[in-house]
Amino acid sequence: MSVSRDAVARLLLNRFGSSSVLLGEDVRERPVSKQIVSGCEALALLRPADTQELANMVRFCVEHELPMVPRAGMTGLVGGTVTSPDEVALSLERMNRVVSVDRDAQTAVVQAGTPLQAIHEAVQAHGMQFPLDLGARGSATIGGMLSTNAGGNKVLRYGMTRDLVLGLEVVLPDGQVMNSMYSLLKNNTGLDLKQLYIGTEGTLGIITQAVLRLFPSTDDRHAALCAFESFDAMVQMLNLMRAHAGPALSSYEVMWNAYYALVTQPGRLRAPLSRDYPLYALIECEYPERGQSAQNGERFAQTLQTAMEQGLVIDAVIAQSESERGALWRLRDEVHYIRTLSPIYSFDVSLPIGQMQTYLRSLRSELQARWPDAVFIVYGHVGDGNLHLAISCGGKEDAHTVEQLVYEPLAAIGGSVSAEHGIGLYKKPYLQFSRNPVELAVMRSVKTALDPKNLMNPGKIL
Amino acid sequence: MSVSRDAVARLLLNRFGSSSVLLGEDVRERPVSKQIVSGCEALALLRPADTQELANMVRFCVEHELPMVPRAGMTGLVGGTVTSPDEVALSLERMNRVVSVDRDAQTAVVQAGTPLQAIHEAVQAHGMQFPLDLGARGSATIGGMLSTNAGGNKVLRYGMTRDLVLGLEVVLPDGQVMNSMYSLLKNNTGLDLKQLYIGTEGTLGIITQAVLRLFPSTDDRHAALCAFESFDAMVQMLNLMRAHAGPALSSYEVMWNAYYALVTQPGRLRAPLSRDYPLYALIECEYPERGQSAQNGERFAQTLQTAMEQGLVIDAVIAQSESERGALWRLRDEVHYIRTLSPIYSFDVSLPIGQMQTYLRSLRSELQARWPDAVFIVYGHVGDGNLHLAISCGGKEDAHTVEQLVYEPLAAIGGSVSAEHGIGLYKKPYLQFSRNPVELAVMRSVKTALDPKNLMNPGKIL
Repeated sequence: MSVSRDAVARLLLNRFGSSSVLLGEDVRERPVSKQIVSGCEALALLRPADTQELANMVRFCVEHELPMVPRAGMTGLVGGTVTSPDEVALSLERMNRVVSVDRDAQTAVVQAGTPLQAIHEAVQAHGMQFPLDLGARGSATIGGMLSTNAGGNKVLRYGMTRDLVLGLEVVLPDGQVMNSMYSLLKNNTGLDLKQLYIGTEGTLGIITQAVLRLFPSTDDRHAALCAFESFDAMVQMLNLMRAHAGPALSSYEVMWNAYYALVTQPGRLRAPLSRDYPLYALIECEYPERGQSAQNGERFAQTLQTAMEQGLVIDAVIAQSESERGALWRLRDEVHYIRTLSPIYSFDVSLPIGQMQTYLRSLRSELQARWPDAVFIVYGHVGDGNLHLAISCGGKEDAHTVEQLVYEPLAAIGGSVSAEHGIGLYKKPYLQFSRNPVELAVMRSVKTALDPKNLMNPGKIL
Repeated sequence: MSVSRDAVARLLLNRFGSSSVLLGEDVRERPVSKQIVSGCEALALLRPADTQELANMVRFCVEHELPMVPRAGMTGLVGGTVTSPDEVALSLERMNRVVSVDRDAQTAVVQAGTPLQAIHEAVQAHGMQFPLDLGARGSATIGGMLSTNAGGNKVLRYGMTRDLVLGLEVVLPDGQVMNSMYSLLKNNTGLDLKQLYIGTEGTLGIITQAVLRLFPSTDDRHAALCAFESFDAMVQMLNLMRAHAGPALSSYEVMWNAYYALVTQPGRLRAPLSRDYPLYALIECEYPERGQSAQNGERFAQTLQTAMEQGLVIDAVIAQSESERGALWRLRDEVHYIRTLSPIYSFDVSLPIGQMQTYLRSLRSELQARWPDAVFIVYGHVGDGNLHLAISCGGKEDAHTVEQLVYEPLAAIGGSVSAEHGIGLYKKPYLQFSRNPVELAVMRSVKTALDPKNLMNPGKIL
């Protein structure tokens, strides 16, 4: 740069004005992540009013060789939005509208800065649902979810973010606007450009708008909490549910004993089943067909009955009302109780279901060999092959050892160091356990081709 | 090249042997496409026995700067596998095995040269289905379907090829083997490399193996042929079926009168309903839940009854047996009767359902203004927004005019010049109607980055 940092910051402010450019203290009081609620270090925080202004800002940054880091709802868990004092933070918080909802076409057009919950509410008003859902729905924005290809509670039925998008608008690293705002289910015209940008954490450009797929809304949901004696019984129950409910099976969320016991400690959540079973699953079916709710409820109960008669399920409770269903979901959603443990290391991995039992056993014994009082908490979207792990042991200096123990065995069993959270900064050292050198070289080639100056969220993922 | 074409061909033969390398007449007797059953022009046709041999062949071609054109089942319709005499054709016909089927993980590993029908049969033997299906199943190979992101009969329910793949193995343009043979549903570790290669018609590398997603097999299918007075009634019925059957609605195949009348001419297929209705839809629901077939059949019939009472459907027949269901599907599958017309121009477009009626009316009147006796045949996967058009008019010199009439209006309404067939050579001049210059530039950057010598299926798509 030929001008000083301060001079560039002033240039930005003069060029785009104070509603679009924050400097100094206004930047520092911004959150860094869900855990770190302030302390953002960045040369400036840019808040464009629309795509055109963002494009102008990107061109300014290219001219001054300023690295750009997109921010979203700051609920990410991999450090994907961490900025350094020489980088510019880009926030789409002013681009937060649901632009349109088309009920016949089953699509919604949304700006990237829109929180997930606002999308849910807007489409619900049209009798539709956007099935992407997760605990952070109040603050997570769709732009952040697109950039990390977020998963969540209904992946089993509807897929991840990647599967729920038809079109995108992206500001490219040179400030050009790529309009790929298609609403077509089928479009075989070369490279699927939206797939190129989804899940690449802002390293190839900034997603500004999207065309989302909608589905008919329904309140015909049936949920139960089941307890199991063994991992095998829990997997057999998953297969039974798949056979009996088909695509209506929307969630199969498993909680190992340590997790269930933690969230149901006295003063926390009420335990609907004894706290002594080895495994629990929150099972939900969602039926979109009209006018079949009573029959569906009966079928759901009948399947559970069958499972109990077969000895697969040893105890169970079916939600009899929306509030009971809500109470069951809180057991799974209120993961924040994990943060009462310290130190705590959290992980998001995926692996074939057939490998889970061995992987967990071996990891547990490795941990206990090093730290006899290690706390090992496991829960997750087992139907998707996705486990969340929370481990409390040792001191802060042991983080790297724990990470190695968790990630390294995944390479041999075809697992992934990141099922739904992404790579960002924090998982970058472990990407090698899920991606081989040839794959990494292909990713680097694409990055270099599309962002030759390496200004888009540099140093993240790769 | 420093050596002559003939010398290179001899070098290839010496290096890889006669079971892997065909030259001269052996090449020329090969099909060019489904329509052109022989006449392949290529310097040589390479038939590697395995991925390693293919990788060695690619390295040989790079060394001698030989362009490579992957071939598959030769059922493509866009000239994606056309070779020139200076190019080498690569066929994966010897790599045609279903390597493994994992019932618990619901996956199959297949080599790219395996015909679709062989995959169907192999997984059916394990009580599973691979739901990708289309008329050319006997000869289309999975490699070709991956390279074009094929669609077919059950996209409404299961998605296109892109949605049914978990992992890939690809030989890159420099001969390196990229092993991305994951079987994970969730894998957020940077760029989704499989999505980069699916649908790019061999321009970025050669897919050699894939991990496919399977689903439980079922014979609980209910099909009906319905007739409609109007386009609006047909769309209302689609929405009614969506509401009543939810994700069980697997096909909604519409045939306009000219198509239905053509395939049910005397001596062709039997017409289950009068040949005089404006529109017909072949509607199928597929229920994977176990032990509900009788109830599902009743629900299906009840929904049709409701539609008739509401005046949406004016005539209908429900298949009462597998053979009756097969007869209904033949009406849709035996599209070959279209080739009795000459000249015949065929198209595969997609566009929002809300735009279809206006688009078709305007196209019909444009055609009839120029050629008063033009035959205009429309059918397709309306549930997916995908229409197939077959137009017979004028002489061979009119092809370009007809193509312009079909493709040009799609730009303004956000349509696609290719819903499921791809771009290849034949649709390349019209790609500009579906992709803007910024998008094309991004595609070109990726192509150049990954295939800097432009040796992988050069001149296709871009």
